[in-house]
Amino acid sequence: MEIVTPILTPFTKEGEVDVEKLKNHAKYLIENGIDILFVNGTTGLGPALSKEEKLKNLKAIYDVTNKIIFQVGSLNINDVIDLVKASKDYDIIGIASYPPYYFPRIPEKMILKYFLTISKYSPHPLYLYNYPLATGYDISAKTLYQIKDIMTGLKDTNQDLAHSLEYKILMPNLKVYNGSDSLVYYSLLSLDGSVTAVSNYLPHLMRKMKEYISKKELDKAIELQKLVNKVLDISRKYGQLSSIYYLVKEFLGYDVGYPRGPIFPLEDDEVKALLNEVQPIKKEIERLVL
Amino acid sequence: MEIVTPILTPFTKEGEVDVEKLKNHAKYLIENGIDILFVNGTTGLGPALSKEEKLKNLKAIYDVTNKIIFQVGSLNINDVIDLVKASKDYDIIGIASYPPYYFPRIPEKMILKYFLTISKYSPHPLYLYNYPLATGYDISAKTLYQIKDIMTGLKDTNQDLAHSLEYKILMPNLKVYNGSDSLVYYSLLSLDGSVTAVSNYLPHLMRKMKEYISKKELDKAIELQKLVNKVLDISRKYGQLSSIYYLVKEFLGYDVGYPRGPIFPLEDDEVKALLNEVQPIKKEIERLVL
Amino acid sequence: MEIVTPILTPFTKEGEVDVEKLKNHAKYLIENGIDILFVNGTTGLGPALSKEEKLKNLKAIYDVTNKIIFQVGSLNINDVIDLVKASKDYDIIGIASYPPYYFPRIPEKMILKYFLTISKYSPHPLYLYNYPLATGYDISAKTLYQIKDIMTGLKDTNQDLAHSLEYKILMPNLKVYNGSDSLVYYSLLSLDGSVTAVSNYLPHLMRKMKEYISKKELDKAIELQKLVNKVLDISRKYGQLSSIYYLVKEFLGYDVGYPRGPIFPLEDDEVKALLNEVQPIKKEIERLVL
Amino acid sequence: MEIVTPILTPFTKEGEVDVEKLKNHAKYLIENGIDILFVNGTTGLGPALSKEEKLKNLKAIYDVTNKIIFQVGSLNINDVIDLVKASKDYDIIGIASYPPYYFPRIPEKMILKYFLTISKYSPHPLYLYNYPLATGYDISAKTLYQIKDIMTGLKDTNQDLAHSLEYKILMPNLKVYNGSDSLVYYSLLSLDGSVTAVSNYLPHLMRKMKEYISKKELDKAIELQKLVNKVLDISRKYGQLSSIYYLVKEFLGYDVGYPRGPIFPLEDDEVKALLNEVQPIKKEIERLVL
Repeated sequence: MEIVTPILTPFTKEGEVDVEKLKNHAKYLIENGIDILFVNGTTGLGPALSKEEKLKNLKAIYDVTNKIIFQVGSLNINDVIDLVKASKDYDIIGIASYPPYYFPRIPEKMILKYFLTISKYSPHPLYLYNYPLATGYDISAKTLYQIKDIMTGLKDTNQDLAHSLEYKILMPNLKVYNGSDSLVYYSLLSLDGSVTAVSNYLPHLMRKMKEYISKKELDKAIELQKLVNKVLDISRKYGQLSSIYYLVKEFLGYDVGYPRGPIFPLEDDEVKALLNEVQPIKKEIERLVL
Repeated sequence: MEIVTPILTPFTKEGEVDVEKLKNHAKYLIENGIDILFVNGTTGLGPALSKEEKLKNLKAIYDVTNKIIFQVGSLNINDVIDLVKASKDYDIIGIASYPPYYFPRIPEKMILKYFLTISKYSPHPLYLYNYPLATGYDISAKTLYQIKDIMTGLKDTNQDLAHSLEYKILMPNLKVYNGSDSLVYYSLLSLDGSVTAVSNYLPHLMRKMKEYISKKELDKAIELQKLVNKVLDISRKYGQLSSIYYLVKEFLGYDVGYPRGPIFPLEDDEVKALLNEVQPIKKEIERLVL
Repeated sequence: MEIVTPILTPFTKEGEVDVEKLKNHAKYLIENGIDILFVNGTTGLGPALSKEEKLKNLKAIYDVTNKIIFQVGSLNINDVIDLVKASKDYDIIGIASYPPYYFPRIPEKMILKYFLTISKYSPHPLYLYNYPLATGYDISAKTLYQIKDIMTGLKDTNQDLAHSLEYKILMPNLKVYNGSDSLVYYSLLSLDGSVTAVSNYLPHLMRKMKEYISKKELDKAIELQKLVNKVLDISRKYGQLSSIYYLVKEFLGYDVGYPRGPIFPLEDDEVKALLNEVQPIKKEIERLVL
Repeated sequence: MEIVTPILTPFTKEGEVDVEKLKNHAKYLIENGIDILFVNGTTGLGPALSKEEKLKNLKAIYDVTNKIIFQVGSLNINDVIDLVKASKDYDIIGIASYPPYYFPRIPEKMILKYFLTISKYSPHPLYLYNYPLATGYDISAKTLYQIKDIMTGLKDTNQDLAHSLEYKILMPNLKVYNGSDSLVYYSLLSLDGSVTAVSNYLPHLMRKMKEYISKKELDKAIELQKLVNKVLDISRKYGQLSSIYYLVKEFLGYDVGYPRGPIFPLEDDEVKALLNEVQPIKKEIERLVL
């Protein structure tokens, strides 16, 4: 039962990756109960990063920990192969990739070929990152079964837990994480863990939820999930990805820079309103977690 | 009433843009009735191109024609701004961009800000490229109306013609093109034209359809549309984007290289099967168009 | 090229079918250019009618005209068979049915069996009523092809004209009507006609559009379509089905009673607001149609 | 934590409700651990039943138990009101209704009016039956909040548990059941219970799952859920609603008649194949449950 953080990528105001802020954030997370860092995921703005930026993120975080799953997906297979090859110098948990995105109706055969290509070059265990809402493709358990021999695990970002559980039913040895913030409680109760963006700013809450579940204090665990959902509900209004940067500062006290357009930073009045709305829940969290 | 080709990007087997093949293809299209080239669109694998590749495509095609709409969209706003600025050296029809893609639930305000940013730097008229199926965002007529002063036109890739017509109803001066291959006939009969990927390999048919419509020989025009739909139905089975490369060679006789993974080239047996299936329709087209 | 009206069902305030109002409306439509009446369609609140009410509607309208397609679909196959049998006493154009609705994931085989059962008992030509948005099932051209021998035609209520055209490509002898109000112009230009709810209150406009298209005055025809879309845009805000009752009175001058809950009549202030909003377009229509 | 069975409706071969078989089934369920019967739900083919049949089902089951939630929804508000009024003679748990279905784009205001009308006449607590996939309408927590004073509980048939949990967050006193068979385990762990169609034929498994969860033997509980999902996966191929009739006989040993077209009975070879496929899982269930 693991808590995985899809770590955000801090940018400077000018749009450069801020390596020091990234290391600092990674360190805090690992020291406060996060089990694994998922690098260059959606929350890390993976699809908006260049090949060089993806590698820079790996390097920076590897200075802090090797509990890393390195997301390398791209619409340029040459870039993907370069990243996979470059990863051989790093002793990490695994390589991950989403399927191709944007382009509608890519034949399933080509999508499988994409993962087979990655596998051919990968020095590390391979993880699927399945996120149908973002990519337009659902690599379901039945589809994945065709290439099960090359897969060690997957992150299924999906509101349907039966969909995630299906992988376990068909391929019991596969590591399966659900990637929805609003379903962490359920994921911990039935899968290998959860990849949760919210753990960027609420790592203590997530650790506590894990503890409660270990001790089978389920009533307490679900109360924490409800608080998470309340925060999510607020942050979505302002843009969930941009909000995370300000919520880290609010909840953890240190600066993680800015997102980069078109995932624009929030305007000052939006930041104010976001933090204001979040106060009552922050108080509840402090009461229940500390 | 214009036929616009979203020109494909020829790659070498190794995945480099093949500039000579691109120029050659652009020249053929312009000399055979295509009115405008839409550069770095979906068919050009725009979202899979680096900033440098997008600019390389513009340069190459500009050697042949200035009837160009230059698509610059990217998930990195700095790259977008760089491309927009670089376009000042080219006397072209316009700049276009899709909205951000992949990331779910970006607030509408941020998406509008993205286009406002482009507009601020653009030396050319601005066109929206609306493609909800690929991007996850529908910039409908009512949404676009909020920033109508910065927009000259749009490509609406959408199966619903009422959706495209709505822009004309709300903003009569906007140039509106529908971007669906299966709706060219209808687009020519009600909008400013059509952006059609199929015109990469059937430019003669498209010119003929335009002629028929000008002369109000509608029965003949719709027969051509039906042939287009038959070819589409076949090419989709093999992957529509990859198929285009082989269909250009089959219909026009010259080589346009390869797509690039994960939009992989077809396997030899797939090429054979595709071209085989297409023969009867090719014959019909030759009979009706030449 | 035919204009088909899916005739509304007038109810009394107490929720009984108002036979006299129905006859009166049917008479007006037929005398003012409507070619066929589609009885018990969606606009007629077909799925909300009992078997007895469906038959009552047929009887009433048959007193006025035999240009009738009689929709009999129901989730009780015995009711369907009873209605099909009862239709033998009426010399009408055809029987129609939507597929089963509400229940998700009915196997295709069962849906085909439903139509085969109807066909077995039907004394009239059979029409499919395909309306995926309402029923959850899309009986596409490829699906329908399996039972093409029992089908004379279909109404495809769908925003995608390529979808409607596909039936004509695969089965050229099939009568194909598109059922979207916002696509009448396009349907008349490529299919056998249009089934349009708006023709309940704008039959004159629809006749005029047909005339313009016959005379190839396409610019004038599309202007009428744009007016239709403007009215639709307004009526949707109040509930399109309920609004029709008030728009018939406003545009044609006679009373067609009320809808029946849960398709509730509008509140007085809603009626007022609807009719108010519609005035400018009414003026435009009067200018262009009369 | 309650297990609710949406009880199937047994029909004769001719399509009449088979009252004796219904009573017999209701009795078995109540005697074997089912807490509540949901009458005229989707599994009971509610939308395919006449007003008279809906009442007949209530009467029959009331002879066995008063642990009943009586689903009365219909597209004819007069029928709904009649059923609500008739229920006053029965001392039951509550009245339920889905929102209107089939008709697209009914304004939210009308849907709320529908429930307010039911509430006005209801002598019993009112439950919402939210099933977006079937009805086309999602009465989310935020929507329901507007009429929270008239609602005692709801059945949310939905694959997203965060959606179900949202009702509890906003309205802690509301009884919330998730209605998905593949999520029973999760529902029992966080909501007031589960409405599960599979409990028609696996009531013992469901009782066992409830026991395990009470005793916090979660590993054993989730193994049962996996078995349920395996059976579901098979039965969907044949048509889930029709399959239930044969699976009751297979698992519980008594006859519950037939479904009614267009939810047609299975063909003999389909029954054979279904029961054959299900054998290995049946063995696993027997091993784990008995």
